[in-house]
Amino acid sequence: MPSADPRAHRLLEAYRGRPTDCTPVWLMRQAGRYQASYRALRQRVSFFELCRDPDLAAQVTVTAVEELGVDAAIIFSDILVPVVALGVGVELTEEGPRIAPPVRDRAAIEALRLFDPVEELPFLLEAIRRTNRALAGRVPLLGFAGAPLTLASYLVEGGHSRNFIQLKRLLFGDPESAHLLLDKLATMVVRHLRAQVEAGCHAVQVFDTWAGILAPDDYRELCLPHLQRIFAELEPLNVPRILFGTTTGSLLELLRDSGADVIGVDWRIDLAEARRRLGPRIAVQGNLDPCCLWLEEPALERRIRHVLEQAGPTPGYAFNLGHGVLPGTPPERVRFLVDTVHRLSARPSQTTR
Amino acid sequence: MPSADPRAHRLLEAYRGRPTDCTPVWLMRQAGRYQASYRALRQRVSFFELCRDPDLAAQVTVTAVEELGVDAAIIFSDILVPVVALGVGVELTEEGPRIAPPVRDRAAIEALRLFDPVEELPFLLEAIRRTNRALAGRVPLLGFAGAPLTLASYLVEGGHSRNFIQLKRLLFGDPESAHLLLDKLATMVVRHLRAQVEAGCHAVQVFDTWAGILAPDDYRELCLPHLQRIFAELEPLNVPRILFGTTTGSLLELLRDSGADVIGVDWRIDLAEARRRLGPRIAVQGNLDPCCLWLEEPALERRIRHVLEQAGPTPGYAFNLGHGVLPGTPPERVRFLVDTVHRLSARPSQTTR
Repeated sequence: MPSADPRAHRLLEAYRGRPTDCTPVWLMRQAGRYQASYRALRQRVSFFELCRDPDLAAQVTVTAVEELGVDAAIIFSDILVPVVALGVGVELTEEGPRIAPPVRDRAAIEALRLFDPVEELPFLLEAIRRTNRALAGRVPLLGFAGAPLTLASYLVEGGHSRNFIQLKRLLFGDPESAHLLLDKLATMVVRHLRAQVEAGCHAVQVFDTWAGILAPDDYRELCLPHLQRIFAELEPLNVPRILFGTTTGSLLELLRDSGADVIGVDWRIDLAEARRRLGPRIAVQGNLDPCCLWLEEPALERRIRHVLEQAGPTPGYAFNLGHGVLPGTPPERVRFLVDTVHRLSARPSQTTR
Repeated sequence: MPSADPRAHRLLEAYRGRPTDCTPVWLMRQAGRYQASYRALRQRVSFFELCRDPDLAAQVTVTAVEELGVDAAIIFSDILVPVVALGVGVELTEEGPRIAPPVRDRAAIEALRLFDPVEELPFLLEAIRRTNRALAGRVPLLGFAGAPLTLASYLVEGGHSRNFIQLKRLLFGDPESAHLLLDKLATMVVRHLRAQVEAGCHAVQVFDTWAGILAPDDYRELCLPHLQRIFAELEPLNVPRILFGTTTGSLLELLRDSGADVIGVDWRIDLAEARRRLGPRIAVQGNLDPCCLWLEEPALERRIRHVLEQAGPTPGYAFNLGHGVLPGTPPERVRFLVDTVHRLSARPSQTTR
């Protein structure tokens, strides 16, 4: 296959609001535990070993594209990979990540070490280069990072959390220290994403997975300024900038004001309403409930059709799930999903690939 | 203290949209693990033993009112208490409730036994009578039940769930069986709430804690008809009917259309927006983030003031948390919260108590 220019690919065209030959689709966690190939590899290496091995990370990234026929690769990594370079102890356990000791006071926040990702995360940048060589321009490659709030939730809580009590104590009780933490994380996110783009990523996604834990007024006050700085500082790179969050029904207008080009939403928002509220300047990505991948094909197809209908015919839309592919998902349904999106949305009059 | 008529109490007046002398306040899980008195009692009896002992349940219910000075008692029970009477095995473990075997197919749904709560839950109705005797009309007493969706989530998943995969398989993959299950649960909820009112409850709250896991179209199709039936069948009882859910930013108009008199919301919705979207016919309850109870008094007071300002001066509002009081909450802050709501909202020109 000849090397094509992925910048003209239908996904990036959709992100720019331009018409495409069919609706592009990729899936959050399209490389992961639901795949037999991934589970076999993880028998041999730990999660972080996988992230830190450029050959394996590239292999996992590319395999997902080849198994599924999706319209993008997303570099295999984790939002906590750069957190290690902040000087924080991160461990992955059966119950999820553990950050020890957690970052809960001013001194711990001040001790966080800002770093140069070219020096500290060379394995990631090398994985990006190798992935692009293997893809040979077939699809664009996405880089990503966690949003400051979501990263802070792990740092402050010390891992997954149900109620985010410690995080909110810091955010609400000591907003000055909270802003210092979020500002440092925003600086890290900018450097991290810039390095990924310079290494070859064609678009970047910021995951604010836990956006929905805050009231709109708190999100406006505590998170929005840092997101605005991130997206403003990334603007000169001239790649589509995606902001994804879950449970953002009350936050959409704030996400719009972040400066991102594309907003990713979950199934808790009607896509037609999301497009209306976000306006014509913003592309939208989402939002099939990942649980739908357990349905039989006819029911799954009805669900996919419904999402496409809600998204409507206006350009500026990319299909995705509302959250990542869940462990245990039947892999043949994931492939069916990708094919079905392409089939149902085909617009033969358009010539983008 | 003379026996007063709790039907004239400020909480019920607020639920009816009438002016009150100050904003009424009660708290979800105002009786619970954050209280030393409750933890001491639970050293001696299990959770379900406590629910099934009319004297102890009444004692726990009344103690919360007396410790806090809140404007309502809510009968001490659990949404899973009536589920036992459906013929389902319910066990409480360290990790939460376990339903074994879970209710996942048509046969299991058909086997669910509808029952007469007067015969099957006499301890609960007796606890209501004893609570009212102890309260002597000082504050109204609330009854409650889980909403069909939330009850179904426990029955189908077999306990707490992160992604609700099994529940959604049933809801989306076999909607006919799902409706049968939700319809049976709605019948149970009506009987359960009617019995509580007949035993002496002055208002009832339906907890649709997990409402926010569904897309608006699914909530409209799968949940709304059952909620509408519940509230219509309760209407002749002539008591305020409250519907509470979390993460309902995209569902507010559907909750309004349920026929409930009062909608309880969490902190993820701006209260001013909630009041605007729900319209003048519906009273609103909520929505302080329970994590705020860890803040020092001045910061907590600012948060309480903000909620009261968002709720605005229009009658038809009751203060509450956006979810239950969390275990580990400093009890003195809960008391401070109640006093502060009363103090900040005092309207001496009104004469309701």
